[in-house]
Order: sequence, then C-alpha cells, then structure tokens
Amino acid sequence: MTRRGTVAVPDLVARARGGEAAAVARLVTLVEDASPVLREVMAALAPHVGRAHVVGITGAPGVGKSTSTNALVGALRRSGRRVGVLAIDPSSPFSGGALLGDRVRMGDHALDPDVFIRSMGARGHLGGLARATPQAVRVLDAAGFDVVVVETVGVGQSEVEVAGLADTTLVLLAPGMGDGIQAAKAGILEVGDVYAVNKADRDGADRTRRELRSMLTLAERREGAWRPPVLATIASTGEGIDRLLEEVDRHAAWLAETGELARRRTTRAAREVEAIALATLRERWAAGGAAELDRLASLVAAGDLDAFGAADELVTRAAD
Amino acid sequence: MTRRGTVAVPDLVARARGGEAAAVARLVTLVEDASPVLREVMAALAPHVGRAHVVGITGAPGVGKSTSTNALVGALRRSGRRVGVLAIDPSSPFSGGALLGDRVRMGDHALDPDVFIRSMGARGHLGGLARATPQAVRVLDAAGFDVVVVETVGVGQSEVEVAGLADTTLVLLAPGMGDGIQAAKAGILEVGDVYAVNKADRDGADRTRRELRSMLTLAERREGAWRPPVLATIASTGEGIDRLLEEVDRHAAWLAETGELARRRTTRAAREVEAIALATLRERWAAGGAAELDRLASLVAAGDLDAFGAADELVTRAAD
Repeated sequence: MTRRGTVAVPDLVARARGGEAAAVARLVTLVEDASPVLREVMAALAPHVGRAHVVGITGAPGVGKSTSTNALVGALRRSGRRVGVLAIDPSSPFSGGALLGDRVRMGDHALDPDVFIRSMGARGHLGGLARATPQAVRVLDAAGFDVVVVETVGVGQSEVEVAGLADTTLVLLAPGMGDGIQAAKAGILEVGDVYAVNKADRDGADRTRRELRSMLTLAERREGAWRPPVLATIASTGEGIDRLLEEVDRHAAWLAETGELARRRTTRAAREVEAIALATLRERWAAGGAAELDRLASLVAAGDLDAFGAADELVTRAAD
Repeated sequence: MTRRGTVAVPDLVARARGGEAAAVARLVTLVEDASPVLREVMAALAPHVGRAHVVGITGAPGVGKSTSTNALVGALRRSGRRVGVLAIDPSSPFSGGALLGDRVRMGDHALDPDVFIRSMGARGHLGGLARATPQAVRVLDAAGFDVVVVETVGVGQSEVEVAGLADTTLVLLAPGMGDGIQAAKAGILEVGDVYAVNKADRDGADRTRRELRSMLTLAERREGAWRPPVLATIASTGEGIDRLLEEVDRHAAWLAETGELARRRTTRAAREVEAIALATLRERWAAGGAAELDRLASLVAAGDLDAFGAADELVTRAAD
C-alpha cells in the first residue's frame, strides 16, 4: 500500500508487469496527465520495452475502425495473444476525449482480463497526445501485452501520426467513400502496410479495391520493399478478419527479417524524444512571467517583427 | 531585371503588391522551398500584412471541398473582391503534392487576373508545411488580396491545422458521411465557425444538419460566443453559396467587433514563430556530424536510455 496521493513507481510497474489491469490503467493515467513522476515511470519502463508488436489502425470516419479493432482483437485472442488497445481521440470536447461509443463497441472484450482497452483524449496543451501516445504504447509494451493496437481517427491526424507510431499500419477504407483521387488526397498511399476495404458486402467494394491496388502499383517502391496487400473485410460479421491478422503477422515477420523493425522503432523514438524536447522548450517559453512567446507573437501579428526574428529570440532563450 | 539565379526581394514584393501574378507565384515558391532569401522575404512582407480576411475550408475527403472553394471564389468575385487560394495537400506522392484535379476543378477562375490559385504540397522535411503555409498566407495578404482561402484536406491534418491558420473556418460535411458520433470523433465540433452540409440535394442532408445542430448546441459555449450556423449548399450548382458568403462576412464582422480577430492572429503568429524555432532547432540537432537525434533515438529504441533523458540532452544542445 502507498500513502494516498503518492505513487510508488517501482511497485506499480511490477504490478502492471504481473498482469494487474488497475496498475496498467494507473500508469497510462500518469502518462496522460504528465504526472510529476512521469520521468520516473518512463525510466522504470525503459528496460522492459520492445517486445510488443504495435499495430496502428486508421481510416476516415465511418469506415468501421472501432468494429474492425474489435474484430481484430477477437482474432488475436483466438491465437492466444494478450492485447492492449489505445483508442486515440484527439479532439472530442465530450468526456475528455473518450466517447462512450468506443467503449460500447469494444464491449465484446470488456470482461476479458487479457485485453486492456483505453480511450485517450487530448488533455492539456497542444502536443499532449504527441507526447503521451508513444509513452502509453510503452506502458502497454512493458506490461507484457503481445500486441498493442492503436486506433486513431482519420489519416494524417494533427498530433498522432499512427504511421510513425506503429510497427504495422492498417488502413481501412469503405466502398464509395471517394474515388482514387480522393484516396490520394487523403494521403493514405504512403502510410499503409496492410489495406482493408471494410463493409465489403456493399456496392462498389470491388471497384474500391481495384482502384486502390492500381494506385499502390503506381506509387514507386524500392526493390525488395513490402507490397501492401489490399484485403476485403466485413468487420461486423468477422468475415476476412483471420486473413487480415495473417497479413499483419506476415508483415511483422518481414519487418524483423529485413531489419526494418529496428529502423521504424528508432524513427519512433526520435519523434518521441523530439516531442518531449519541444514540450520542455515550450514550457520554458511560456514561463518567464510575461509569456515570451505571446509577447513575440503579438509583435508579429502587428507587423512590427517578422516571424524569423521572433523565432531567433525564442531559440536564444531556449538555452537559458 | 535581376541576374539569373539572384532574387531582388524588394522588387519582387513591389511587383507582387502591384498585382503581378508571376511575382506572387515566385514569392510563394521562395517560401515553399525555404529559399536562402526567405528571411529577407518575410521581413519585407511584415509591414504589409494583416489586411486580408483568411478563410479556411476543410472537411473529409469526398464532401466537395474543391467544388465549394470554386463556388465561394465565384461569390467573392461577384462582390468585387480579389481572392488568393492556397490548396494544401500534405501527402500526395504524385506531382509533388499538387494534384491535377485541383487545378481542373478550379478552372472557372484560371483566367481571372484577380484570382490567384496555388496548390502547395509537402516538400522537404517534416514540418515544412507547418512553416510554409502561414508564410504563404502572408505573401497573399501582403500582395493585397482581400480574401485568402486556404483549402485543406480533412480535419485535424497532421501539419496544417486550418483552424489555427484562418480567421474564419468553414467546415464542410456531406449527407450520410457518418452519424453524429463520427462527426464528434472527427473533431469538427471545435474548429468550425461556419458549417455547410454540401450535396444538400442528397438523402439524409436534413438529418445531418439537424444532428450537427444539436451537437453544436450540446457543446458548451461561453456567453457572447459565436454560434456557428449550419447551412445547406449544393456547390456544384451554386445553391446556398451566396448565403454561405454572407455568413462568412458576418463572422468576419463579429471577429473585428469583439476583438477576437486580434486574439486569433496572435495565436496564429505564435504557432508560426514556434514552428520556425522548432525547425531551427531540428536543423541544429540533425547537424553536428553524427546526427545527435538519431544517436539518442537508437539508445531509446534499445531501452538503454529513456526518452526524457534523451530529450534533456537535446535541449541542452539547443543552446550550443
């Protein structure tokens, strides 16, 4: 037992690694709230990370992300794996970012002790999710989940780029959600490792798959590069989901064999380090009484100083 | 005339302000390419900015953003205003981010000397568009366009948050593109100043408007806050577009009366300054031979260092 209001980090990490869901949840909250013990938490987790396979699931609103995540979690459980899920919702003003809908739709696994589900919203200042999400992934990784699924709203999210966060990125589409040019505009052609056209029983599903395949073929890829499969799923009935998991696993094997896994994880760590460094600098800029950044911004908005001159002043003060 | 390869910035700015489209285009290119004379360009523009009203147009792929932009530009022209358009496309691998589709659809105004249209793609490193877009807005502002329209792909774009960029943000929806919860998840309830359900002749348009209205009512707003109208448009025929412009203009007047305009512009300037400061620091971190950030990220990925420790090292080096 710890005293009320204090946190015994080593104990919490040990309990999370022992499979205690409440301890995992507490660690994610500490991460999300940028608790004063956050540094201690991350240092305690560091030796235990790197084992989980991180799967990102993304796609435009309405393609069935939550249903697909639910179905994929089911398939992972059938294969005997423990699964952690982070549903990222950067912008809802309701309930601190976590919509009831997510929890309801993930209800199939709500009582399974080997599934941990958490909705994360944007708390605090800009950049909060960019910092907290990779750290929450580390929590679930260190807690021993075999797979961490990160579900994000939309492609090209402002703060949480799932493609930078995941080992394997799964992009969902739905029939008739836009022609080829729209798909290209949405920027999905670069980020996916596996594509699934969900709601494949609807009109136009074959056409959407065909178009996507031909656009992926047009996009130049290096010799020996991974060629993303384009699958058909009906997440609400589970159709195609086992095949989807097969492709995710095949991609995981490919990542490990080619050394791409290490490269992706270094990139991910770089973004995380950069986000923390930036947050640190922002705090310094916002401190110092008069809120230096606001003062400089007012001058720029008034045309009395250009943005580069203002940035120079900020950077100089980063050293202080 | 300038020598080949050199740029006479004061001359270029003067010509752009005189209405010469080629000079405006050249300035936007200098901004986009982060030219060595970029600082000089921004300093030369600074005294001339702040007059244009900046309208952001956003919405999910398939709602008809380009068609709506085209129609709105037509309405603005009928009211005698000069219009600059930036179409932001952060992610397409084709044609450097500028898809032919945009230009084709904007074809109504391609020959109008009082309309300037430019597609901007993601060139260069991460953060490029975050830096370049507000600067390109400044170029068009300083060049004397009465309204600058910034069309972005999707809501919550990774780099270009139109809500942070614009004085008035117009959010487009289409019928049946997702129910209320989906709309909330997409994060559109906070960013819009004016909402339009486009393709209003399609089934479900009234329902989408009703749902959106009730969700906007649920979202708490301060006393005296702007209440975003929810309009119906058919951009392809122009129906509802004059009303749309009326609401944009009404919002512009409200911004000026309440002092909110100055506040938004200061916020915008702060983001711009911060983006430049960050880019400066990133360059320093990437320089120094061994690419400090990569070295630290490798340690973090391997579990030999936690991300905070790595960030501390980076921030310390920002001062060097």
